[in-house]
Amino acid sequence: MNIALVGFGSVGKGVAQVFSKKQDHLRQKYDLSFSFKGIFTSKGAFLDPNGLDLQNILNTKDLTAHPSWKKDLSFMESIDDLDVDLVIEVTPTNIEDGEPGKSHIISSIKKGCDVVTANKGPLVVAFNELTQLAQQNDSILRYEGSVAGGIPVFNLVRKSLQGNTIHSLKGILNGTSNFILTQMTYERTSFKSALKTAQELGYAEADPTYDVEGIDAASKTVILANGLFGMNKGIDDVYIQGITKVTPEAIELAGNDNFLIKHIASIEDGQIEVAPRLIPVTSTLAVNGTLNVISLQTDLAKEITIIGRGAGGEETASAILSDVINIHCARTTLS
Amino acid sequence: MNIALVGFGSVGKGVAQVFSKKQDHLRQKYDLSFSFKGIFTSKGAFLDPNGLDLQNILNTKDLTAHPSWKKDLSFMESIDDLDVDLVIEVTPTNIEDGEPGKSHIISSIKKGCDVVTANKGPLVVAFNELTQLAQQNDSILRYEGSVAGGIPVFNLVRKSLQGNTIHSLKGILNGTSNFILTQMTYERTSFKSALKTAQELGYAEADPTYDVEGIDAASKTVILANGLFGMNKGIDDVYIQGITKVTPEAIELAGNDNFLIKHIASIEDGQIEVAPRLIPVTSTLAVNGTLNVISLQTDLAKEITIIGRGAGGEETASAILSDVINIHCARTTLS
Repeated sequence: MNIALVGFGSVGKGVAQVFSKKQDHLRQKYDLSFSFKGIFTSKGAFLDPNGLDLQNILNTKDLTAHPSWKKDLSFMESIDDLDVDLVIEVTPTNIEDGEPGKSHIISSIKKGCDVVTANKGPLVVAFNELTQLAQQNDSILRYEGSVAGGIPVFNLVRKSLQGNTIHSLKGILNGTSNFILTQMTYERTSFKSALKTAQELGYAEADPTYDVEGIDAASKTVILANGLFGMNKGIDDVYIQGITKVTPEAIELAGNDNFLIKHIASIEDGQIEVAPRLIPVTSTLAVNGTLNVISLQTDLAKEITIIGRGAGGEETASAILSDVINIHCARTTLS
Repeated sequence: MNIALVGFGSVGKGVAQVFSKKQDHLRQKYDLSFSFKGIFTSKGAFLDPNGLDLQNILNTKDLTAHPSWKKDLSFMESIDDLDVDLVIEVTPTNIEDGEPGKSHIISSIKKGCDVVTANKGPLVVAFNELTQLAQQNDSILRYEGSVAGGIPVFNLVRKSLQGNTIHSLKGILNGTSNFILTQMTYERTSFKSALKTAQELGYAEADPTYDVEGIDAASKTVILANGLFGMNKGIDDVYIQGITKVTPEAIELAGNDNFLIKHIASIEDGQIEVAPRLIPVTSTLAVNGTLNVISLQTDLAKEITIIGRGAGGEETASAILSDVINIHCARTTLS
């Protein structure tokens, strides 16, 4: 399998690390051999028609000194000349127009490549366009890592709950806001002070708007609504309320009655929303810190809840690796 | 796909109900058409070479009056004459010698059938013997429903965490003992009184030994150890301690420090055990009532926890249905 990796931030580096580490395991267990022909960063690309040495690139401090380095070369300029079967798209999320990821994915599909992405942007703005385009071009598009990195919810439904009808979904999809609410609950601090702690620990960015205003969680909910429920929703269809107005007093009042305030995403009766909600302390949704959780109401298995890490390079790379293995298995048994 | 169903208690009836209900869904979504050629109960069998009407059998009050009924006919007497591709084995669990399930499964594999079972007995006494026999005969043996009915843990690892190494496992695998401990914790009752409530509600049997002494949970742990960790363990390899000696005083003391006492199964460093353990109230393992939970420590996705119902005819049938669909998909893309 010849691969191009587009995006080389924490997730892209996690992908390179994980594929490098699991090379023998993949060959022995799945008869899957791979070669990375190109890695595209925001400043240029590493290209080698004979395959790049992933560990060597990860260890490179000075990009410009690397023999495979091509300054300023972009994926869009290179795609026609690339000899690849699969593109891993992990550039930064942009939910305004989905770019540059959307163009990367469209071009890859049109070239006949399979695509694995963890980039929410293209999926939020053009989910049905992209999945239909993939179908028309006999390309497989997978996106397990785009929602709650370490939690394999799409594959769970696709491969382990196939006979079930999923009635509704509830979850916590943003680790930063969950960390802040957990701090406010157990340390009895204000939103502002909890946010500061989150920033100091590297859980929140300097501009935390996307996380604390619920936009990140809403984006993931859109992908879940379209991917699991076959809807055709965009970010404007989500009722969104952030956590910035949650007060320590409200949390304490809830606590007196054995409730927590959690930032809950839900898909129910065609309605999708993200908002602070009261949750019993004994609820399976009552997970703390930066954890994510997704709970599905199904007709046969009833309620299934899955808890895991929502972010992190290696956790998201785990989801990407699972998608790549599933595509490899589908392609080799079909051919 | 021609199917024989062996066992017609609550799980067997759940299977018949679910396959009947999902007939159209399976045909449309997976191109899977099926016909039940035989259903074997403890008193005899329903046989019809043209396929049984599942709903009609489920509605039958007087078995002996049913035109397809063969009094006293057993699966072992019938197997040579049955025209089936797949056997669903759901007779009662017997962890002494695994019978009659073990013989049913061995005969089915030798006949060249694929087998789906939720019967712990054969898997506890002969896991490696059965999986090797299946491999030698190019038969697929699946057992998702044998552990924690509604929780698809084997398929999760097989299909969604393929790149991961599973380091260790912790879980609650018996709904009855979890219900009793939950009652003792929140209603501040004795073990005896909580057991009585569990029996009145139908969660515990008249003889609750298997559940409260940890034997049921230990059986499931053996299957997890062999199925997920490639071990070769039997029930005698498990350190087992039941919950009968847990006192309300111990639970209260634990509660004062924000801990719960839970009946925890664990597989760690080659050791497997089931025993009452202290768990922080905020732990993802702190699930209540009859719920089951399984938490996996993995190298890439880190900790993944899955919570669901551990028993119930329809929940277990959901796992069996998932196994049947996976076998159908494997067989049709390979042929």
